[in-house]
Amino acid sequence: MNVNDSVTKQKFDNLYCCRESILDGLKRTTDMMFGGKQVVVCGYGEVGKGCCAALKAMGSIVYVTEIDPICALQACMDGFRLVKLNEVIRQVDIVITCTGNKNVVTREHLDRMKNSCIVCNMGHSNTEIDVASLRTPELTWERVRSQVDHVIWPDGKRIVLLAEGRLLNLSCSTVPTFVLSITATTQALALIELYNAPEGRYKRDVYLLPKKMDEYVASLHLPTFDAHLTELTDEQAKYLGLNKNGPFKLNYYRY
Amino acid sequence: MNVNDSVTKQKFDNLYCCRESILDGLKRTTDMMFGGKQVVVCGYGEVGKGCCAALKAMGSIVYVTEIDPICALQACMDGFRLVKLNEVIRQVDIVITCTGNKNVVTREHLDRMKNSCIVCNMGHSNTEIDVASLRTPELTWERVRSQVDHVIWPDGKRIVLLAEGRLLNLSCSTVPTFVLSITATTQALALIELYNAPEGRYKRDVYLLPKKMDEYVASLHLPTFDAHLTELTDEQAKYLGLNKNGPFKLNYYRY
Amino acid sequence: MNVNDSVTKQKFDNLYCCRESILDGLKRTTDMMFGGKQVVVCGYGEVGKGCCAALKAMGSIVYVTEIDPICALQACMDGFRLVKLNEVIRQVDIVITCTGNKNVVTREHLDRMKNSCIVCNMGHSNTEIDVASLRTPELTWERVRSQVDHVIWPDGKRIVLLAEGRLLNLSCSTVPTFVLSITATTQALALIELYNAPEGRYKRDVYLLPKKMDEYVASLHLPTFDAHLTELTDEQAKYLGLNKNGPFKLNYYRY
Amino acid sequence: MNVNDSVTKQKFDNLYCCRESILDGLKRTTDMMFGGKQVVVCGYGEVGKGCCAALKAMGSIVYVTEIDPICALQACMDGFRLVKLNEVIRQVDIVITCTGNKNVVTREHLDRMKNSCIVCNMGHSNTEIDVASLRTPELTWERVRSQVDHVIWPDGKRIVLLAEGRLLNLSCSTVPTFVLSITATTQALALIELYNAPEGRYKRDVYLLPKKMDEYVASLHLPTFDAHLTELTDEQAKYLGLNKNGPFKLNYYRY
Repeated sequence: MNVNDSVTKQKFDNLYCCRESILDGLKRTTDMMFGGKQVVVCGYGEVGKGCCAALKAMGSIVYVTEIDPICALQACMDGFRLVKLNEVIRQVDIVITCTGNKNVVTREHLDRMKNSCIVCNMGHSNTEIDVASLRTPELTWERVRSQVDHVIWPDGKRIVLLAEGRLLNLSCSTVPTFVLSITATTQALALIELYNAPEGRYKRDVYLLPKKMDEYVASLHLPTFDAHLTELTDEQAKYLGLNKNGPFKLNYYRY
Repeated sequence: MNVNDSVTKQKFDNLYCCRESILDGLKRTTDMMFGGKQVVVCGYGEVGKGCCAALKAMGSIVYVTEIDPICALQACMDGFRLVKLNEVIRQVDIVITCTGNKNVVTREHLDRMKNSCIVCNMGHSNTEIDVASLRTPELTWERVRSQVDHVIWPDGKRIVLLAEGRLLNLSCSTVPTFVLSITATTQALALIELYNAPEGRYKRDVYLLPKKMDEYVASLHLPTFDAHLTELTDEQAKYLGLNKNGPFKLNYYRY
Repeated sequence: MNVNDSVTKQKFDNLYCCRESILDGLKRTTDMMFGGKQVVVCGYGEVGKGCCAALKAMGSIVYVTEIDPICALQACMDGFRLVKLNEVIRQVDIVITCTGNKNVVTREHLDRMKNSCIVCNMGHSNTEIDVASLRTPELTWERVRSQVDHVIWPDGKRIVLLAEGRLLNLSCSTVPTFVLSITATTQALALIELYNAPEGRYKRDVYLLPKKMDEYVASLHLPTFDAHLTELTDEQAKYLGLNKNGPFKLNYYRY
Repeated sequence: MNVNDSVTKQKFDNLYCCRESILDGLKRTTDMMFGGKQVVVCGYGEVGKGCCAALKAMGSIVYVTEIDPICALQACMDGFRLVKLNEVIRQVDIVITCTGNKNVVTREHLDRMKNSCIVCNMGHSNTEIDVASLRTPELTWERVRSQVDHVIWPDGKRIVLLAEGRLLNLSCSTVPTFVLSITATTQALALIELYNAPEGRYKRDVYLLPKKMDEYVASLHLPTFDAHLTELTDEQAKYLGLNKNGPFKLNYYRY
């Protein structure tokens, strides 16, 4: 059961959680001020969208890189300049990767960054920044505090590398209990569904969580916000062709 | 070919276009000021998300109603109070429907609105507001300008009804050429695909536009924004298991 | 009595009103989409702040020019790139002046703008754009609708000039009744004060409205928003050294 | 020399710094999630404006209390419900004081808060929350981590009190070097001015920093942001009646 791609996981753990943890992770490690800083965010998926929204709101100037033209157009419409990393690498104060890809930030990029540029990773593994390329004799590493390394070039330039390129949000901030609750509920429901499902419903394959369960996870968390859901009348349910208890959307609905 | 649910249609025509046309439609019809106004938006799909984001940015206080717990939780995380319409109907200055449902605003709601409350519809048809219920002898209709009616209660209370409950964005604002271009390109590509497809690819059914075409539509519009897409290296494409020319996402990806 | 510099006039008429009227004026004249557009705003006073906030919220990428280092630093902290007009004039889709200065946009700038760039003025007079410089034989003027001229260069390039460089918000949008009410109340109170003032309070000079009247104007408009003011307790008033009915701030307070 | 009321101090130290430190202070002490939370901010001065803007951007629902009708109207236009503390005290998740006043949050308020409500102070001293009233025998204090106390009512209700009501931003977050630099430069320039001033310029009184020095502080910090100031031409300086090197604004200008 592919729990990672359920709506509640994707939107809440990735988008909404990262919107907060990018700020938290950067503050706890560097005490930097966000206002006026130039930032490039590599990747405009759910994580990238969260990082960009948070930093824009705090007064940073944010550039985005993307390989997918649809996500790229979303970045444009959300007010971010879509660039190639090379175009802005010399001028930015922070580089954040959230692509799920490898070697997005290469040694060549690192060589061209300005003094005291901060480099960190919010993506899914530690491959996005080519940290191995920094383990060469001419560069000096200095651990300035937990999770924060200065990598020093022969001319004195320092790059601030966070968590050695591992996930910033796991290494340098905390995960709110609310997000843990959503993710754990989703996983528990997936297990219950697999256990209870009549033989034959699931074959040897990977499945998405049934939408009704995704909706159930969400409904369990609404009281936290004192949120009041509206119920369909019989007449409305009939008009829409929906069951009053859901599911309320077709499978391909994007939220 | 279900063009309406392609990503570029959903996100660009619905979300981004409505973000602008709700403001435009309200200004052209009522010359109202948005700052400080209390607004309730019924429905938090793409259209509702666009309306809410725009009004919040202009300084309105926005409440949301929803039937779907997932969309409801999104509204919470985006900073909107999730309420039932009855809870706020007496206090709001504007009521906007974007549900796709019928009779979301009933005569009972209309009876309880305060004087000079504005009522309009951004959803998919003219059924959301029960306008027929206002065609009763005790209420007087006064056309104050094109697309704007005052419905007057016996005690003098006036409700400002826009476009007689039809679509505000089509009736009272204009559609930007950029959005027309995206939608028309999507439709044209769908026709070309249907014409060129080898026999057997499409049976008597409704299909979503192939993702690669959706991506192509987006890529055609990037130069408008002087946006520069990044290309995968061979090594990266192999790592991700993707073709360098896309499609870049699985079918259920939500953007 | 210098009513223009009272707080309620400056903040409400200039900042909050322009935040809405820049969008309204541009939509009614050009039907353009704001998302993804590159805009330069000349001047970051109250009017410029309003224009920048609105366009950023609608997904535009906004650059700012300033002569005053304090306002310039504010633009930085609010997330706008501070540039000289020459640096971005070739790439922007819209140029907006709000400086109160003259010849901020010169013929040289106009010559370098790209095709279909929109030029308009939100400042205090019609001097900010050097429109006279466009009245030369080699340029053709074409009135495409009320308040909208295309100025056509010999090579076919068109600049979209709004309201012939006069105030966009007065020429092409409407002033909300709320703002009119604030401004008119301020002016009326100023007249009453001048009439009632004991001889000798005002000499032959220009005065700012007494703060208590400014506060009174504001308090008269709070019920519109169902806003509930808190009253100081006797103990708190004593602690702060304030009269419970105001004035609540020293004269140089900036709001 | 009253350095605290110079523009660069007020806007940068108070507004922009608090916009970031409220988030930082709350995260480091409580690891809470901001999205969907209901917050009341007492006071809408520079500090309150910063707190409100940050929390709104992170998806919180923010209420404001004010005693000054002008600041109150600003809160309305910025999209915040203006309430008395009593109206919302039962429902909010966080209470933040930034008034400069005393006993803004009383024992009566604390008694009515819901379980696990967070209470903290961003104002100018430790008087805003009546912490002394919580030192009574029926309440139990539990130190859960540094700067975080749970105050436990007989029925088990817990209030989360941060920094024992002292300044959250000084106690629980760090001050960015950028803000320190602005404040220290302002203070140094004030000392230099006092030392260099010809006899008679300053009498036994409190003075604001001359505007030109305020502007000088700002201009020294622009290069950090690679910000490019525009210079007045001779013709423009003459038109505006300004010296090309400033000061650029009258003394009562509010920024």
